[in-house]
Amino acid sequence: MVQNTFTGIIYRLDLYEFNKILILSPAVIIKLKLMEVSYDAMKAEFKRILLSLSFTEEKSESCAGIFASNSLDGVYSHGINRFPVFVKYVKEGLIRVDAEPMLIEQTGLIEKWDGHSGPGMYNATKAMDRAIALAKTNGIGCVTIKNTNHWMRGGTYGWQAADAGCVGICFTNTIANMPPWGGKEPRLGNNPLVIAIPRDKGHIVLDMAMSQFSYGKLQEYQLKNKQLPVPGGYDEQGNLTQDPSLIVTSRRALPVGFWKGAGFSFVLDVLLTGLTGGRSTFQITSGGEETGVTQFFLCLYQPAYADELIEEIIDYAKSSSLVENDKPVLYPGENTLATRKRNSIEGIPVDPDIWSGILKM
Amino acid sequence: MVQNTFTGIIYRLDLYEFNKILILSPAVIIKLKLMEVSYDAMKAEFKRILLSLSFTEEKSESCAGIFASNSLDGVYSHGINRFPVFVKYVKEGLIRVDAEPMLIEQTGLIEKWDGHSGPGMYNATKAMDRAIALAKTNGIGCVTIKNTNHWMRGGTYGWQAADAGCVGICFTNTIANMPPWGGKEPRLGNNPLVIAIPRDKGHIVLDMAMSQFSYGKLQEYQLKNKQLPVPGGYDEQGNLTQDPSLIVTSRRALPVGFWKGAGFSFVLDVLLTGLTGGRSTFQITSGGEETGVTQFFLCLYQPAYADELIEEIIDYAKSSSLVENDKPVLYPGENTLATRKRNSIEGIPVDPDIWSGILKM
Repeated sequence: MVQNTFTGIIYRLDLYEFNKILILSPAVIIKLKLMEVSYDAMKAEFKRILLSLSFTEEKSESCAGIFASNSLDGVYSHGINRFPVFVKYVKEGLIRVDAEPMLIEQTGLIEKWDGHSGPGMYNATKAMDRAIALAKTNGIGCVTIKNTNHWMRGGTYGWQAADAGCVGICFTNTIANMPPWGGKEPRLGNNPLVIAIPRDKGHIVLDMAMSQFSYGKLQEYQLKNKQLPVPGGYDEQGNLTQDPSLIVTSRRALPVGFWKGAGFSFVLDVLLTGLTGGRSTFQITSGGEETGVTQFFLCLYQPAYADELIEEIIDYAKSSSLVENDKPVLYPGENTLATRKRNSIEGIPVDPDIWSGILKM
Repeated sequence: MVQNTFTGIIYRLDLYEFNKILILSPAVIIKLKLMEVSYDAMKAEFKRILLSLSFTEEKSESCAGIFASNSLDGVYSHGINRFPVFVKYVKEGLIRVDAEPMLIEQTGLIEKWDGHSGPGMYNATKAMDRAIALAKTNGIGCVTIKNTNHWMRGGTYGWQAADAGCVGICFTNTIANMPPWGGKEPRLGNNPLVIAIPRDKGHIVLDMAMSQFSYGKLQEYQLKNKQLPVPGGYDEQGNLTQDPSLIVTSRRALPVGFWKGAGFSFVLDVLLTGLTGGRSTFQITSGGEETGVTQFFLCLYQPAYADELIEEIIDYAKSSSLVENDKPVLYPGENTLATRKRNSIEGIPVDPDIWSGILKM
């Protein structure tokens, strides 16, 4: 009766993000047995595989740590579920194992780096590290990097900056996946933006793409025959819709805030490209694969921030009467921290099939 | 038959923003005779009034120029229509005419200023000027300012940076006017954000608030008995609605991108407050008046930007097939420039009643 034909990333995303319950169709609900894997065990496997692919000790440590941390934080789509795709790109030569990011130009305190098509997470970590170091010396530091690759979860580098006591702001361009405002065809990337602020009780980390829903998320809802919780795009007749299938067909995914997010995405791409001479969403899209992207990293550093006033802002937000009494107001990053704590104690929930695939790699 | 009881800012906003046609109800459409006033004449009147209020030559020149420029660019709500409110605030002492912004602290290259409750446009111009100067020397410059006042149109300072050849990024906090995600009561400001990139053929300037529609805009639609073009908030039952009256009643205006814009607005306020120790949206709201706000100005400077690649991005966006054939894809700032050119040639459209009020001030 159950036809388990849903394989690959969509299946796995779905599996992890909905409390271990996979709904294949309205009629068929399966509870799947997940296993728990510790962060250390997961990272060790990733590292073993990367070392076998000729990653250096440093690079494998960095990349394995990020894939495991993303999983620990509940971002499975850019953690364990994405790892096989990363390995595939490495094997196809789209990601160059031996590449090192290099400083190529400096305008005052802005450093321009070239990622030389190396692993995106490694390059992004190095770029943010450099922005942190510049900020620690000058109060502010800015690093741009071109010819780099997908950084997986943008939030990673926000947490990195905040862990170092810095405000961190970073963004990347992507392949085109949203129409411009007034247009019907994809011309804009969803260009994720991250803003992180250090905080003793748990950093505040905003990690948002410029699309209301990613295509991965639309496909999850599609798979479950569920409507989106809010409008996510237009159908082919130009009506705003919550039906994910109609949006996947029309390719008219909605930017956050309609014309506003479309403009925002556009401006981030112009900023990245204009500052670096790196590849724009147009050029990435023309290339056919989401490689050779361009990124921006900014840090601000102060020995102290107005911690009490920040707590006041959080308390104020949380003091609002609630739409649903069991759903509190959360600050950006709060949920991530809760998931991190839970997965640290209970282990990271893993589909046994995926895990055995990893073990065999 | 026509009951012209709609006075004040709402009436005037409506008047200017809809091609000189004021729709009071579905049954009543009036074409109003507007007069045209040149930029120079408008600025001269504003300056005369500000000088009479003990503004210095420099301050009156700056503030009058900004109110006139905002009108020239078609942002009447923060131009001529707002001028009488500004004068009222000055007379009430909420805006201190004699205040000068001052550098109070420096962390590396980040300068912290205190606006001393001076005119917001004057302070913001000075802050952006300083960020420009720092960027011209160091490639990057950052200025924060606390205890300042409403900057009127945020885009003003983006155009200023781009005119100086800099990328400019700035944002401000505001009084609370949106609920946090999951909440029902206003706890977040709409915290406008500006990103500007210099371009020979016309700067790219994004100027976006974090709410989908301002209350002013909701009231315009309400006045015309029109539905919003896209959902703008929730009704009291928690349903997403395009009915402006239901949103004005519920006070549940929508952040751009739902939970995303709510998080973004929150993070901007934390950033402003955490970096400066200045007033947060909570504190501004507690004070009851939108005064003493906190702002952030960042500039990046390079002798050259990748101009050809920027044109490629614009061309790519414009190459999309259109939703409506007579509505082209526009880049952020394109419309402003078109309005500026038209109003420069034809004069700035002005309601004769407002203008005669200005002349009598």
